[in-house]
Amino acid sequence: MNSRQMVLATFIHNSGAHPGGWRYGADADQHDVDHYVRLAKTAERGKLHCYFSGDQQGLPMIKGRDAYAATDYAGKLEPTTLLAALAMVTSDIGLIGTVSTTYNEPYAVARRMASLDHITKGRAGWNVVTSAGNSEARNFGHDRLMDHDLRYERAEEFVDVVKALWDSWEDDAVLRDKASARYFDPARLRQLNHKGRFFNVAGPLNVGRPPQGHPVIVQAGGSGPGRALSARTADLVFTAQSSKDKAVAFYDDMKARAAAFGRNPAHMAVLPSVQLLVRSTEAEARAAQEELLHLIPDALAWATLQMQIGFDLSDYGPDDKMPDIPLTNGGQWVQQELVRMARAEDLTLGQLAKRATVSRASFSMAGTPEQVADMMEDWFRAGAADGFSLSPNYLPGGLEDFVDQVVPILQKRGLFRTEYQGDTLRDNLGIPRPAHAQMGHEPDLWA
Amino acid sequence: MNSRQMVLATFIHNSGAHPGGWRYGADADQHDVDHYVRLAKTAERGKLHCYFSGDQQGLPMIKGRDAYAATDYAGKLEPTTLLAALAMVTSDIGLIGTVSTTYNEPYAVARRMASLDHITKGRAGWNVVTSAGNSEARNFGHDRLMDHDLRYERAEEFVDVVKALWDSWEDDAVLRDKASARYFDPARLRQLNHKGRFFNVAGPLNVGRPPQGHPVIVQAGGSGPGRALSARTADLVFTAQSSKDKAVAFYDDMKARAAAFGRNPAHMAVLPSVQLLVRSTEAEARAAQEELLHLIPDALAWATLQMQIGFDLSDYGPDDKMPDIPLTNGGQWVQQELVRMARAEDLTLGQLAKRATVSRASFSMAGTPEQVADMMEDWFRAGAADGFSLSPNYLPGGLEDFVDQVVPILQKRGLFRTEYQGDTLRDNLGIPRPAHAQMGHEPDLWA
Ligand SMILES: Cc1cc2nc3c(=O)[nH]c(=O)nc-3n(C[C@H](O)[C@H](O)[C@H](O)COP(=O)(O)O)c2cc1C
Ligand SMILES: Cc1cc2nc3c(=O)[nH]c(=O)nc-3n(C[C@H](O)[C@H](O)[C@H](O)COP(=O)(O)O)c2cc1C
Repeated sequence: MNSRQMVLATFIHNSGAHPGGWRYGADADQHDVDHYVRLAKTAERGKLHCYFSGDQQGLPMIKGRDAYAATDYAGKLEPTTLLAALAMVTSDIGLIGTVSTTYNEPYAVARRMASLDHITKGRAGWNVVTSAGNSEARNFGHDRLMDHDLRYERAEEFVDVVKALWDSWEDDAVLRDKASARYFDPARLRQLNHKGRFFNVAGPLNVGRPPQGHPVIVQAGGSGPGRALSARTADLVFTAQSSKDKAVAFYDDMKARAAAFGRNPAHMAVLPSVQLLVRSTEAEARAAQEELLHLIPDALAWATLQMQIGFDLSDYGPDDKMPDIPLTNGGQWVQQELVRMARAEDLTLGQLAKRATVSRASFSMAGTPEQVADMMEDWFRAGAADGFSLSPNYLPGGLEDFVDQVVPILQKRGLFRTEYQGDTLRDNLGIPRPAHAQMGHEPDLWA
Repeated sequence: MNSRQMVLATFIHNSGAHPGGWRYGADADQHDVDHYVRLAKTAERGKLHCYFSGDQQGLPMIKGRDAYAATDYAGKLEPTTLLAALAMVTSDIGLIGTVSTTYNEPYAVARRMASLDHITKGRAGWNVVTSAGNSEARNFGHDRLMDHDLRYERAEEFVDVVKALWDSWEDDAVLRDKASARYFDPARLRQLNHKGRFFNVAGPLNVGRPPQGHPVIVQAGGSGPGRALSARTADLVFTAQSSKDKAVAFYDDMKARAAAFGRNPAHMAVLPSVQLLVRSTEAEARAAQEELLHLIPDALAWATLQMQIGFDLSDYGPDDKMPDIPLTNGGQWVQQELVRMARAEDLTLGQLAKRATVSRASFSMAGTPEQVADMMEDWFRAGAADGFSLSPNYLPGGLEDFVDQVVPILQKRGLFRTEYQGDTLRDNLGIPRPAHAQMGHEPDLWA
C-alpha cells in the first residue's frame, strides 16, 4: 500500500478538451446546467478531488469564419454561478472556478469566492488566471492585453488583498447572542486599509471567514512570473507538460520555489494536465484518436496554432518549419513549449498545428484503462506529479469512461482513495487550513 | 373574479427587514445556504413571483461600536452565487439579484446574469443599483462615493451595454450540427463595438442569448435620475412609499414616464415595499411591534437615521426637530421622504430615528392576516401598486406567516393566483420576452 496517493481533478472545458470532441461524443448542450450536473455527479462518483471549471471572459480570435463556426466556444457559463448550482447537487467534491485578476476587483472576487465557500460548505477553489487574449481585453475597456509581467504584478497584489479580506473576520467572530444584543464580537473584526500599487481596498469583507479559512488557490502560469506566483500563493499547481522528463523538471522547480518561499512543498500539489482518451483496446483507442483528429477542419487547427503561439502565420504554409518568433505577450509557457516541440521533433507547421490543437502543450494519455493507469502511475512514481488534472477529450462520455474503468484500477493499486476523507476540499487534499492573519486595524466603520 | 392580479416579491435582507428581527425570530445562520433554501422554498410554496436578494458591496458605517455589534450586517452571501444555488432547489419562482453598476463592468454582469438565466432556465432578474454608501466606494479604490447623478449616467450606459451583450447571439444561433461542422451559425452572431462615455466593450458575449431574451430588470431609484432609469429600462420598479397617497402619485408618475419612453406602462410593474408583520390578533401584532422596537438599542436607531439621511447629527439630540440639511449624495428619495415625514408629523429626531430604523421610508403593514390582506387590496385597487415587495420583519418566520395565512386570503379574493402560469419569470409576470435587437457589426473575431 502506498501512503501517498494521487490527487485527481477534472478540468471541464466546453464539450471536451479535444476541439473535435463535440462532434464525436453524445450531443451535449453547453447552455444546459444539467450537462454539468451530470459531469459533477460522475466525478463525485469517481471520488475525484475536484471539478474544475475553466473560463475566459470573451470569445477568442480564430481566423476564418468556417473554422470559427466549428468551435464549441459558445455557451461558456460563468464559473462562480455554475459552481454554486453544482454545490447543491453534490456533497463531497471540490468545486474550482477560474476568475481573472486582470479584469476584476479584489473585493468582488473575495466576496464571491467566500460566498461559494460558504455555499459549498468548504469545497470552493479559485483558479487564479491573468488572462492571455486580446479579445478579452477589448471587453473591458482596453485596446489590447495588458503587458505580461505587469499582469502578474497585479495578480500578486490581487491575491494578497483577497486573502487579507478573507481574514476580515476571525473564525469565531459571529455570536448571534440575542441576550447581549451582540450579533458579532467587534473585537474580532479587522479592517485592511490596503493602499497598494494597483488597489486601494479598505475592507472589511461583509461575509464571515470562509469555512476553509481561505478557499483553495489554484494557479497554472508556466512563465517565470507565473511560477513565482504559484510557488508563493497556490495550493494546487496545474500545468501543461508534454513529456514526463519535462514534468519532473517542472515539479522539482516548483517544489524548490515553494520551499524558497518558506512553505512546506508537500502542501502544494503539482498536477500536470492530461488529455484523456480511454478505449477497451489499443486499436480502438488509436482509431478514436484518428477519428477525433479527422473531425477538426484543417483551417481550425491552423488558426488555433496561431492563437497559441501568438504569431500571425499568413506568410507561412503547413509544410514550412517553425520560424523564429518573438516572445508573446499572451501565454508564454505554451508558446515556448510548442516552439521547443517543433524544433526537437522537426515538425512542419501543419503537423504542429494538429498537435497544438489537440493537446496544447500537455501530454496525451490515450489507450486501454490499464495503459492509462500505467502511464499515470509511471508519472506519479517518477516524481513528475502529485496527481493530474484530467481533460477528457469529449464530454460527458470521456469522463464516464475514466471513472468507470480507470479509477477502479488506480484504487486497486492503492494509488487512489476509495472514499472522501474529510468534509472540506482542504481536508480531502490534506492541505492545512490557513491560520487567521491578525491585522492591526480596528475598523473605523463605527468611529 | 379579477383578471388583474397582484405581483408579489419577497425582499430577503439579512435576518429580516427589521433590525431587531434577528433577536426576535428563530436563530438563523446567515452564512448557511440552508437558511435561504428554506426561505426560497417557502416563497415558492406561496406561489410568489420572485425571491429578491438585496445586496451591498461592503459593510455600512454605523456610529458606535455597541450599536454596530447589534446589527446583522455580517454574512451577506453574494447574490448571483446564492441565487444559482437556489435555482437547483426551486422550479418556478423568479430569482432576482442585486448587482451594482457603480463597481462592476458591464461584460462581467451581462455574463453572470446570462449564466444565471440559463441555470434557472429563465427565472433570473437583475436589480440594478447605483450603490449609495461611502464605505462601498472605499472597497473599490475610491475615497468617496461617485456623485449621485454621475452614478445614474453610468448606470444608463451600463444597462444599455448589458442588454446589447445579451443580444450578441440570436435565439437560434447555436446549431450543434455535427455533420456540417457548424456548432453555431456565424451569421447569427453579432458584435457590439460599443464606445461610450464610460465603457468601451467590443463583445460578443460568450454565452448564448438568455432564455428570457433579457433577464428581468428591476430598479428602485426614487430620485429624478433614478425614476428616469426605471421608466426607460425596468420591468419591475421597487419603491419605498410611506403612505397610499404618495404611492398613488409615484405610481402615476412612473406609468406616465414609461409611456413617455414609448413603452406600454402595463409591462412595467410598480411594487411598493412593505414592512410585514402578521399575527393572529391585532393586540398580538401591536405587542410584537413593541417588542421588536424594544430589541433595537437606541444608539443603533440614532446612528441608522444619520446613515439614511446622510447627515451627521452630533450637534443634535433626540428631542430636537429635523434641521435643514443639504441634499445627500447617497440615496436621495429615502432622505427626502424622511425629512418630509418629520415635518408633516412634527416628529422629534428620536421619534424619526425609530421610524427610519424600522421601515426606512416604506409602509408598515402589521396586523391580522385579514387586516394585512385588506391593506394590500386597498393599495392595489386604489392604483397605488401592481403588487408588493414584501419585507418580512424577521426571517424565516415572518415569511412563513405570510405564505400560510395571508396568501390564501388573497387567493380566495381572486387577487392572487393559485398556480404559476408559465415557465419563465417573464411568463409569470405577463411581461413579454424582448425581441432580439439586430446590431450592424459582423464579428471581427474571425477576420
Ligand atoms: C491546465 C491549465 C488550465 C488553464 N485554464 C485556464 C483558464 O481556464 N482560463 C485562462 O484564462 N487561462 C487558463 N490557463 C492558462 C494559465 O492560467 C496561464 O494564463 C497561461 O499558462 C499563461 O501563463 P504564462 O505566461 O505564465 O505561461 C490554463 C493553463 C493550464 C496549464
Ligand atoms: C425596496 C428597495 C430595495 C432596495 N435594495 C437595495 C439593495 O439591495 N442594494 C442597494 O445598494 N440599494 C438598494 N436600494 C436602494 C435603491 O436602489 C437606490 O439606490 C436608492 O433608493 C437611492 O436612489 P435615489 O437616489 O434615486 O433615491 C433599494 C431600494 C428599495 C426601495
